[in-house]
Amino acid sequence: MIIVLFAAPDLWGEYRDVLPEAIARAGVTAQVVLEAAPETVDYIVYAPGAPLQDFTPFTRTKAVLSLWAGVERIVGNPTLTQPLCRMVDPSLTESMVEWVVGHTLRHHLGMDAHIVNPDRRWNPVPPPLARNRPVTVLGLGALGTACAQALAALNFPVTGWSRRPKSLPGLRCLSGADGLRAALTGAEIVVTLLPRTPETDNTLNAETLALPARGAVILNPGRGPLIDDAALLAALDEGQIGHATLDVFRVEPLPRDHAFWAHPRITVTPHIAADTRAPSAATVIAENIRRAEAAEPLLHRVDRASGY
Amino acid sequence: MIIVLFAAPDLWGEYRDVLPEAIARAGVTAQVVLEAAPETVDYIVYAPGAPLQDFTPFTRTKAVLSLWAGVERIVGNPTLTQPLCRMVDPSLTESMVEWVVGHTLRHHLGMDAHIVNPDRRWNPVPPPLARNRPVTVLGLGALGTACAQALAALNFPVTGWSRRPKSLPGLRCLSGADGLRAALTGAEIVVTLLPRTPETDNTLNAETLALPARGAVILNPGRGPLIDDAALLAALDEGQIGHATLDVFRVEPLPRDHAFWAHPRITVTPHIAADTRAPSAATVIAENIRRAEAAEPLLHRVDRASGY
Repeated sequence: MIIVLFAAPDLWGEYRDVLPEAIARAGVTAQVVLEAAPETVDYIVYAPGAPLQDFTPFTRTKAVLSLWAGVERIVGNPTLTQPLCRMVDPSLTESMVEWVVGHTLRHHLGMDAHIVNPDRRWNPVPPPLARNRPVTVLGLGALGTACAQALAALNFPVTGWSRRPKSLPGLRCLSGADGLRAALTGAEIVVTLLPRTPETDNTLNAETLALPARGAVILNPGRGPLIDDAALLAALDEGQIGHATLDVFRVEPLPRDHAFWAHPRITVTPHIAADTRAPSAATVIAENIRRAEAAEPLLHRVDRASGY
Repeated sequence: MIIVLFAAPDLWGEYRDVLPEAIARAGVTAQVVLEAAPETVDYIVYAPGAPLQDFTPFTRTKAVLSLWAGVERIVGNPTLTQPLCRMVDPSLTESMVEWVVGHTLRHHLGMDAHIVNPDRRWNPVPPPLARNRPVTVLGLGALGTACAQALAALNFPVTGWSRRPKSLPGLRCLSGADGLRAALTGAEIVVTLLPRTPETDNTLNAETLALPARGAVILNPGRGPLIDDAALLAALDEGQIGHATLDVFRVEPLPRDHAFWAHPRITVTPHIAADTRAPSAATVIAENIRRAEAAEPLLHRVDRASGY
């Protein structure tokens, strides 16, 4: 059996050992290579940045297994007719929860005023309790759900919103267009963790940014296009939004002359909120290959109609 | 029945309504006043800063109920022979957990380099996962235990240390002098939540500050004297300690000319980590009065021998 890794060259070093090991642990005998004749390839492990764009010659390939959670860069590829699976990596979920909980608490506690305090102000006014700080999480996939539950465990009253109705214990779950307005209204911290699809572009725009509580904080560790950049800047300048901490951008790295860098109430983090870790991702890939070989359903298979 | 509130004058406004309400809800009939003849007083509600220092004339008083978790300012008072209870307030625990988890994640994620980034550096190196960041919590009282458990829930490998042996699920629990050395050795983040007693003064000193991993972070939301200030400054300057975030100090407010303010690797927060909230503290006080009247054991009664 032949498994090919299509990825930017620097990823090969991360996976050359851990992927064969994980596949062997899953009880599958296979070669993991960087190149092979397309008609001989059983599985493709794929990361954006790979030059591969034409999946037509891979006539034998049983699945394309993405190393990324977001598949928007290949899901619309008309040559990709093989089953496609997203990466849902436990370490990716853990790092996303750490980033979201950390930055939520940073804004909740007003840390920035203590981290940078050249005037040596001693103003012993404690923040409200988390139980009095409503947080809204847009997107209740694997990442959004894990973040919402971690925030709820710290007593934040959490509203979760998803396109399709969901019900999760301990969370107020809303869905649909009316639900989006209700979910945003009065929120003091908004976390955007929606998949990128044509429908989710500019979910936060001039109209929806007016709904949270005045001075609310936006955290975007999801996808850059979920937010209308110009509308965000206007809402920040007007004071409706108090701060935005952004990990993802329409263009990355964020260009040095982008207005976000200069804005005093925007924090840029360099797309580090959730990162696929090779050992843990390799285990997920191996499990899906084992499943395919055993004719069991694939994990995290992408629904082409919804785009994720 | 007469209950007197001895506290700095500004606290009266916070408690004048909520304390009588809480006492009535507990089924006790009593007057809550600011002044009364000592021999008529049934219970004393006490906060540091109150001028009361001589408890001898309060011959009828059945208990002294502190509004603070730390009782070091009265526990050694030889005139105080009545039962003394510490405040263990659920809202105080919540706010402490929020501060400790928030600042742990801040340092874990390396947020400061993103919050202040005038050079617009885009360096997409993700932090390690929490599961690979050992944290040690010194003190496993109500606050320390709650913080340790909240950190463990976020996958941090947590070691807890207490003077007397304890066993708590999900935590590595150590105790005694040898246990302290083992608990500190290799820790990357150390949280000090010990009570203040003569034995805990300077728990972190030149010798013990050498034990954590090089570049470790110290978080002190407990009591200022738990740390030897000069030893901390030396360990920071030498690089053994990477950062200290301190909420409590030997003198408060921290004097404007104190070296901590000027140090680039110290963050000062103004004693806000845990604050007693009047409504929730009043409920705890009322419950203890109900218990005393029903001849039930008091909650959180101070052991004079250990000092907490």
